[in-house]
Amino acid sequence: MARSGPLPIDPIAEAKRQWIAHGWTDAAAGMSAVTSIVRAQQLMFARIDAILRPFGLSFARFEMLRLLAFTRQGRLPMASAIARLQVHPTSVTNTVDRLVKDGLVVREPHPVDRRAAVLVLTDSGRELVERATEALNTEMFERPGLSDDDTAELVRIIARFRRDAGDFTDPRPTPDPL
Amino acid sequence: MARSGPLPIDPIAEAKRQWIAHGWTDAAAGMSAVTSIVRAQQLMFARIDAILRPFGLSFARFEMLRLLAFTRQGRLPMASAIARLQVHPTSVTNTVDRLVKDGLVVREPHPVDRRAAVLVLTDSGRELVERATEALNTEMFERPGLSDDDTAELVRIIARFRRDAGDFTDPRPTPDPL
Repeated sequence: MARSGPLPIDPIAEAKRQWIAHGWTDAAAGMSAVTSIVRAQQLMFARIDAILRPFGLSFARFEMLRLLAFTRQGRLPMASAIARLQVHPTSVTNTVDRLVKDGLVVREPHPVDRRAAVLVLTDSGRELVERATEALNTEMFERPGLSDDDTAELVRIIARFRRDAGDFTDPRPTPDPL
Repeated sequence: MARSGPLPIDPIAEAKRQWIAHGWTDAAAGMSAVTSIVRAQQLMFARIDAILRPFGLSFARFEMLRLLAFTRQGRLPMASAIARLQVHPTSVTNTVDRLVKDGLVVREPHPVDRRAAVLVLTDSGRELVERATEALNTEMFERPGLSDDDTAELVRIIARFRRDAGDFTDPRPTPDPL
């Protein structure tokens, strides 16, 4: 994300002004919200990439290692990982291929379904994900660039959006962001 | 974004619970906020991609065409487009190459700086972006999947985040999302 310094005007406020000027008044707020999410994701990913690059990890690879490290024995069937990470199976396969190549994860045959696979975290995978988690916590998650109130409200709003989009069915998650 | 149906639990609430259980309490809210933004962007991009695919456009190509269509004469120096779209120059070059190849934009030499370029919207570019805008407005921006209050609050929170991250300097944008 090369940047040539801040713009004098807010480009999203300017886009909203244009939307209203063109008579698309009913769509202006939704356009602003979608564009805001896209831009926030770009800004956050630029920081995440910079933090994870020294570890040789992308955010997708970090998420997979973190998920495995949270399990009791550092192992999870591939299908469970796909469901939990809510990503396309093809992209999980690419993520896993890279983790295996780097010696952070091994694929074992599933004990029951021989066509399925179980992912197992290696010792070096566990060591790397703990260091990467600490870096993300210290350098980003403890100071995400939002006030505490804004952080909590953002999570609540997006949780309602995700629930209505079909991300999860639990009416009262714990801890409850809704 | 292939999905196998909603999860019973909210994976972000579950990740937050794990973060707290591991003693990373100060980082748990920030982790939830960042992961929420990433997930919201995935869900929104899946809808945007589906809407724009029939037009042969990505969101990046749509944004460039829309920006050009908002200018008085459908023309903008390349450097201005890079600044306004807040993206990496390399990715703008790729976006423009594809738009030129598709006959939606032409590159003209800059009247003063011969090494620079001016982007000019073609008639078919203008016709396409107007139809794509109408589709996005009707199918997504008028119903973004958020209540009106949540839409407005989300835009406000992210505007504060973007301003503090150096996206723009205007202390009071119009319309004011802050």
